[in-house]
Amino acid sequence: MVGAYYKGNKIIEMGPAEKVQPGENEVQIKIAYCGICGTDLHIYHGNMDARVTVPHIMGHECSGTVSEIGGQVKDIKVGDKVVVRPLGPCGKCPACLAGHNHICYKLKFLGIETHGAMQSYWTVPAETVHKIPDDMSLQYGALIEPLAVVCHDVRLSGLVKGEKAVVIGGGPIGILAALVAKSVGADVLISEINEFRLEFAEKLGISTVNPMKQDVEAFVNEWTGGAGADVVFEVSASNAGAAVMTKLARSRGRIVLIGIYSNSPQVDLKQFFLRELKLFGARVYEKEDYEKAIELAAAGELPLESLITKVAPLEELKEVLEGMTGDQKAMKILIEC
Amino acid sequence: MVGAYYKGNKIIEMGPAEKVQPGENEVQIKIAYCGICGTDLHIYHGNMDARVTVPHIMGHECSGTVSEIGGQVKDIKVGDKVVVRPLGPCGKCPACLAGHNHICYKLKFLGIETHGAMQSYWTVPAETVHKIPDDMSLQYGALIEPLAVVCHDVRLSGLVKGEKAVVIGGGPIGILAALVAKSVGADVLISEINEFRLEFAEKLGISTVNPMKQDVEAFVNEWTGGAGADVVFEVSASNAGAAVMTKLARSRGRIVLIGIYSNSPQVDLKQFFLRELKLFGARVYEKEDYEKAIELAAAGELPLESLITKVAPLEELKEVLEGMTGDQKAMKILIEC
Repeated sequence: MVGAYYKGNKIIEMGPAEKVQPGENEVQIKIAYCGICGTDLHIYHGNMDARVTVPHIMGHECSGTVSEIGGQVKDIKVGDKVVVRPLGPCGKCPACLAGHNHICYKLKFLGIETHGAMQSYWTVPAETVHKIPDDMSLQYGALIEPLAVVCHDVRLSGLVKGEKAVVIGGGPIGILAALVAKSVGADVLISEINEFRLEFAEKLGISTVNPMKQDVEAFVNEWTGGAGADVVFEVSASNAGAAVMTKLARSRGRIVLIGIYSNSPQVDLKQFFLRELKLFGARVYEKEDYEKAIELAAAGELPLESLITKVAPLEELKEVLEGMTGDQKAMKILIEC
Repeated sequence: MVGAYYKGNKIIEMGPAEKVQPGENEVQIKIAYCGICGTDLHIYHGNMDARVTVPHIMGHECSGTVSEIGGQVKDIKVGDKVVVRPLGPCGKCPACLAGHNHICYKLKFLGIETHGAMQSYWTVPAETVHKIPDDMSLQYGALIEPLAVVCHDVRLSGLVKGEKAVVIGGGPIGILAALVAKSVGADVLISEINEFRLEFAEKLGISTVNPMKQDVEAFVNEWTGGAGADVVFEVSASNAGAAVMTKLARSRGRIVLIGIYSNSPQVDLKQFFLRELKLFGARVYEKEDYEKAIELAAAGELPLESLITKVAPLEELKEVLEGMTGDQKAMKILIEC
């Protein structure tokens, strides 16, 4: 019953964590693994102090086993292997009322606005809990959250078999987006500047292009017979990504915005006019994306194992976060809770 | 058989114009009226010298009567009242092959890359000619082209009855977009800073807001009960328009880009993420948009008459263009050819 507490300004300290008794519609989970997300790194560096309340337990990419359930909980029982869809919508805003509660105007993110999974036990609303198959490894389970993100992105893109997709950015989400796009039957190309990530993608059988070495627009133009890509996934959240995304899409091509921009970059809106491009913002996931992610992981056809760079104990969280700072040589690091 | 020739740098001179014999699949039209578009003003000011070949006859918003037809022309006969869809697609590029020849990668615009309608007779491909009803005024006919533009925009937006739409920019296209959006059954608001245009819109029964006097975001928020607009039509092609468009749309709202940007403005891409906004580029029109525009004009329910600020003879084209320079007090001026 311990947790890793962020106490501001890169301070992480271990401490006792409350084993919260589940309410009527809650589930208590004995956490097995929790992946580290870019968001967690932002919390560690103090960039999200406006949203977290210190001392704060981070973590939202978790897997575990149900240890206790509330009286009203159905379809979930003690001992089930589960993962968490860490969203806390308000249920009352226009987005919630329109049936899009994953983009609730007042969305709370479990593990940011509330304590997260970097502790022995985590108690969450039953509504957020998804069962995974008994024979699925709990390490795979900790990858369901980022996998659901890209299932959402690919679903919103409308990508179909035989289409060509470019992924701008080859980090964990870019790699997962490429893998899911390939699983749909699309031809996929990752544009990335980091040599480790380029090599990593190539090893997984994903074609790559390095914009520092090649003209990506010319490359994509040749790759698509002059048409442009059917879908562009912009994962980099960089000014360069925003500048190039409009150059890579075909007439009426779809650009899916996955990266979270902290600024307002310049965008070539004339190209939207000339080619009638479409841009879709995509945020987190809906229930069906979790179901799809679990189905894909269970099918065993994605090389998820290779995405797990390292598994470290909870006590080493600070060292791991420090090591990831500026390090582009890790894909996904799991914390064993 | 005269034409008005643009000879570079704001020079317009009248001169004899060839009555071009129609080829097998061409139609020769005795031009009645030709509206002046913002593009014509750009040509007059020399901003499009890279695309036009001087001496150049401008004009693409025309109506007229068929004076001669080629041997292979079907369904069009001498004496028919017609309008022209002034697009010359290549027929071979990826956009054309995908069935989107209005966004052909090598699109020629009749009246820009070729001589236009500011002459007594204009010969064009039969494919570009649409018949209008015998009882439709030829002045209305000259409004079909801009009306088809907004029919295209509204169609791509997916706007349906009962939805709320904001139009950013209250010039001729903005006003027409608002009228067509209203004809669908939507509630429409125009955001505009020019007092003449604001008053013009109000007289047509369109609600307005002036961002120089009111906080448009707060206004739209209140108007939509905190949800945001279902559709935003960005017609202004201004940095201010690009900045505000993302603030006005609801979760999963659609922003349709109609204005043609000459720069790459800053766009709040994080808002696309937060609300899963959609952005659709919209360019000119397809055949069905012309059919819809003709149907709407024929139904007589749009106040098209009030959009015609003035009708002037061809000889006065230069004076009219000069008068429109910087003048925001004209809606549509028709040239009688």
